[in-house]
Amino acid sequence: MTTNAISVAGVFPPLPTPFKVDQTVDLDNLQANLEHLNQFDLRGYVLLGSNGEFANLSFAERIEVIKAGRAVIPNNKLLIAGTAAQSTYHTLKLTEQAAAAGADLALILTPNYYKGAMTGSVLVKHFHEVADQSPIPVLLYNMPLHAHIDMDAGTILQAAEHPNIIGMKESGANLGKSGMIIAKAANDFQFLTGSANLILPALTIGAVGGIMALANIAPQPLIDLVAAFHAGDLARARQLQHRLIPANVAITATFGISGLKNAMQMLGLYGGPVRRPLPELSEEKREVLRKILIETEILI
Amino acid sequence: MTTNAISVAGVFPPLPTPFKVDQTVDLDNLQANLEHLNQFDLRGYVLLGSNGEFANLSFAERIEVIKAGRAVIPNNKLLIAGTAAQSTYHTLKLTEQAAAAGADLALILTPNYYKGAMTGSVLVKHFHEVADQSPIPVLLYNMPLHAHIDMDAGTILQAAEHPNIIGMKESGANLGKSGMIIAKAANDFQFLTGSANLILPALTIGAVGGIMALANIAPQPLIDLVAAFHAGDLARARQLQHRLIPANVAITATFGISGLKNAMQMLGLYGGPVRRPLPELSEEKREVLRKILIETEILI
Amino acid sequence: MTTNAISVAGVFPPLPTPFKVDQTVDLDNLQANLEHLNQFDLRGYVLLGSNGEFANLSFAERIEVIKAGRAVIPNNKLLIAGTAAQSTYHTLKLTEQAAAAGADLALILTPNYYKGAMTGSVLVKHFHEVADQSPIPVLLYNMPLHAHIDMDAGTILQAAEHPNIIGMKESGANLGKSGMIIAKAANDFQFLTGSANLILPALTIGAVGGIMALANIAPQPLIDLVAAFHAGDLARARQLQHRLIPANVAITATFGISGLKNAMQMLGLYGGPVRRPLPELSEEKREVLRKILIETEILI
Amino acid sequence: MTTNAISVAGVFPPLPTPFKVDQTVDLDNLQANLEHLNQFDLRGYVLLGSNGEFANLSFAERIEVIKAGRAVIPNNKLLIAGTAAQSTYHTLKLTEQAAAAGADLALILTPNYYKGAMTGSVLVKHFHEVADQSPIPVLLYNMPLHAHIDMDAGTILQAAEHPNIIGMKESGANLGKSGMIIAKAANDFQFLTGSANLILPALTIGAVGGIMALANIAPQPLIDLVAAFHAGDLARARQLQHRLIPANVAITATFGISGLKNAMQMLGLYGGPVRRPLPELSEEKREVLRKILIETEILI
Repeated sequence: MTTNAISVAGVFPPLPTPFKVDQTVDLDNLQANLEHLNQFDLRGYVLLGSNGEFANLSFAERIEVIKAGRAVIPNNKLLIAGTAAQSTYHTLKLTEQAAAAGADLALILTPNYYKGAMTGSVLVKHFHEVADQSPIPVLLYNMPLHAHIDMDAGTILQAAEHPNIIGMKESGANLGKSGMIIAKAANDFQFLTGSANLILPALTIGAVGGIMALANIAPQPLIDLVAAFHAGDLARARQLQHRLIPANVAITATFGISGLKNAMQMLGLYGGPVRRPLPELSEEKREVLRKILIETEILI
Repeated sequence: MTTNAISVAGVFPPLPTPFKVDQTVDLDNLQANLEHLNQFDLRGYVLLGSNGEFANLSFAERIEVIKAGRAVIPNNKLLIAGTAAQSTYHTLKLTEQAAAAGADLALILTPNYYKGAMTGSVLVKHFHEVADQSPIPVLLYNMPLHAHIDMDAGTILQAAEHPNIIGMKESGANLGKSGMIIAKAANDFQFLTGSANLILPALTIGAVGGIMALANIAPQPLIDLVAAFHAGDLARARQLQHRLIPANVAITATFGISGLKNAMQMLGLYGGPVRRPLPELSEEKREVLRKILIETEILI
Repeated sequence: MTTNAISVAGVFPPLPTPFKVDQTVDLDNLQANLEHLNQFDLRGYVLLGSNGEFANLSFAERIEVIKAGRAVIPNNKLLIAGTAAQSTYHTLKLTEQAAAAGADLALILTPNYYKGAMTGSVLVKHFHEVADQSPIPVLLYNMPLHAHIDMDAGTILQAAEHPNIIGMKESGANLGKSGMIIAKAANDFQFLTGSANLILPALTIGAVGGIMALANIAPQPLIDLVAAFHAGDLARARQLQHRLIPANVAITATFGISGLKNAMQMLGLYGGPVRRPLPELSEEKREVLRKILIETEILI
Repeated sequence: MTTNAISVAGVFPPLPTPFKVDQTVDLDNLQANLEHLNQFDLRGYVLLGSNGEFANLSFAERIEVIKAGRAVIPNNKLLIAGTAAQSTYHTLKLTEQAAAAGADLALILTPNYYKGAMTGSVLVKHFHEVADQSPIPVLLYNMPLHAHIDMDAGTILQAAEHPNIIGMKESGANLGKSGMIIAKAANDFQFLTGSANLILPALTIGAVGGIMALANIAPQPLIDLVAAFHAGDLARARQLQHRLIPANVAITATFGISGLKNAMQMLGLYGGPVRRPLPELSEEKREVLRKILIETEILI
């Protein structure tokens, strides 16, 4: 198997899934957003991550999103698809369908509803069963905030031994754990941070890049930050890191997915409504967001 | 609207969903289990609750389960169907399909993946939107253990003001909160406990019954406990309560859904595998479970 | 050892510790409050529980509080003193000093700062070491809200095997766990609930009484509730339970220790300031509190 | 006020507090350990942090520890003393006594027992009241693991506005939050990480150093790591970071304070017992620890 020849080094935006006002999926605007982002030197895209409201979509809708995305994503950019379900059975089905629909890699979140049963060994077994049968390489997805499960370094390292598991997205902020994983995993295991807040410190300890909500609205500064780091210009990288954190906090922790969609709208992409019960940003909060985007030089 | 004419006073088992060894849904054995339980004086059944592994099923599979259940559930017993999805959009669709498939009531769990956004007012709006359009009455489902959201009394009381929301299943163990809800809600709001551990104290403060995993394997003792309470025989009710707690803890907290399925198998019903990644009980734990069932006089 | 001859069946208020405006301990007003409460048929008092701000006092101040309390508590009422420290060493010292100062029983909270190390067996060893050397009987104190440790039934049952540990105060609200403890412990192990919200359901499953903040301001209704339960008048007990919950929620969960002190002041006892950083109730919240006390017929 | 002229840039070990076998404090061995560490180019020491078991000591014992420490700590090395109590009243007293005993700075943990009341504004008020009256500069101490309170960036930034609060120790691992604080605080606010796991990424985003348990047993590698970073040798710094994480995880997360003390003993310093109920390392775990120390080249 030569799957781990795929390099995920670089910057990936996790695309939000656009909806029409009647709450149905808006594939046209998804494609328009992707076409806009194609102009940047991004390594690829994540469809159906947490910012993509995967949890709010049916299995069928998810496959439609992947097909629509692939149609406009050029072959030199990767399409990473979130294909997790709570059960191994449906995760396998979705992963196979996603591969058939054109996904290059599958991003597999920890099952979480029956959290009490999800011990380390149960999760490793699940990931290995999925990786065994997946026609495309697998990235682990650790997402403590939403999934309420935070895989420890030992569990991740054990899962990472599978040849078809070529890396991970870590959305937790504990860089000590990340350092442990990077230090102990095989050299070809690729670590991606899940937050623009952490991209510089993550690179410092050996991450290859990031899947970052902020890359939807500020792709170039993030690409510049990574380039500055690799060029040895730590002062410039730190300056960018400090500048981007407040914007990123606003569009993720503070204002959530509606914040991200509103920011995209302000920048000329399509934002549109979130799927309920996710709440829409109030007019007042929208102005706070606008002010932060201006202060951080994202909106000019 | 006369929907709240439906009384949910009594005992309900939340049926596990049987699977075949190939992990597909086993509707025949679901029906066989229901036909066995039909002989008891149960008020009805819950299909597709947490014990029903609803999270492990596709939307389509869930509707098949409801149809198969209704085919063998007599009209004098209620079919309560878990119809929650993460989005309001799919919750509405599922609820409509469930009603068409024969469900008498919809049990609606709090959306939870985007937990940080699920404030009280967001949840109330979601429940009211669902209740507005649901063709059948709605029961709220509060499930802190799995959903990591514990609606407070104020949120529940606000949601309960909707005429098509006629009661709730509370799977949290805080009887102080339960007492607050019962004391403050309209008289026709019907409170069901979600745990056999709590049935006696819950009745004491005004609950009308319970949706209890233990009712799958020990329906008669639970029916007797409720009857003893209503007959004023508190000593008998307490004796039953004390006897049943260890069995209930075993088949829920300690051994999970595989524990429940194994207990059913020991009692002559169909148990069968859980859907992975849920783990199967080890042989050793199965013997511990058997011993507890014997000690608590459930298995004779 | 005949220590377990002490019965703790009944109602106990956990006294707040009064402070002067300069933040020093006000022993005179503690005594005045106790003298007021002496007129009621309470089983005794808890000094230096969580409502007594034990955590805000030095070891020396705590012993002074016990001495001052004992001076006005008649011998037919029990003085239960909170004597826990983080270390076994200081818990032992404090317990010995408390006994010398006149405490009848020691209420020992779980150590909690090094929570990660406080496994069940570590806690059992700690409680047994304290109970071995304590000159007075010990009550376990489980307080998940403040201590962030919730001993499970197994740990409590193991600790309860010590002959000098005669009971417990459970401030967690999980009555399923409580039922398990009562069902499995020796008959002379005495279970006290820590919340007026739970007194009726707790009695139903075998509790002997409660240590309840509300007993500081509404001793008679709580004494009446317990009496109604023992007289078999469940309807009257439930009516009282429903009436008292909103008041209790206000002076505990909602408004905290300052809420309790303000309620005492409104009822003619001494309230006074809390020790900072605990915040004082705002004027606005005080009026909300007053309204609740009037609605629940505590303040007339 | 010129207090913020004190630079805390560099490496600090948080000393464990030695005990004799009878559980009393062992000041002689504390001094012996300090004298050993004096040979390294450390910026100073923390006495009575979490690793110093401050929570297990009486107020009087804590002042004795500071006096004993100061007696052997040269004037060119800083003595930072943990002086927090749950109440503002006792925190102030302890801070004054610590200053009189020779402490250069006070490290003030968030009060935490009454966690529910510890809102951001309550904590800011507490820190400002302490800083107003403290004769020595104050460092904030954020310690989510033990205190169960994780001050957010906004709260810390507000507290940091006080001229006598010159920096902080952050024991949380969220470097995104750390980056936000460093980016937004005044330039002379000094950020120290609380974990050797994070020293390199923390430096990258602008931290000035760290208070790190590992510095008790591996001071030189940590000093080297910081020096390599400042010299622009990121490859060397990363190599050291990767090497040290497993050792640090062992003596902190995995084996706790007894792990740290055992490691010190293996390296020729005094370890000795922890204060109960903290558990002692088993013989078996001691050997695992020894192996890790050898593998990470700390024990040769």
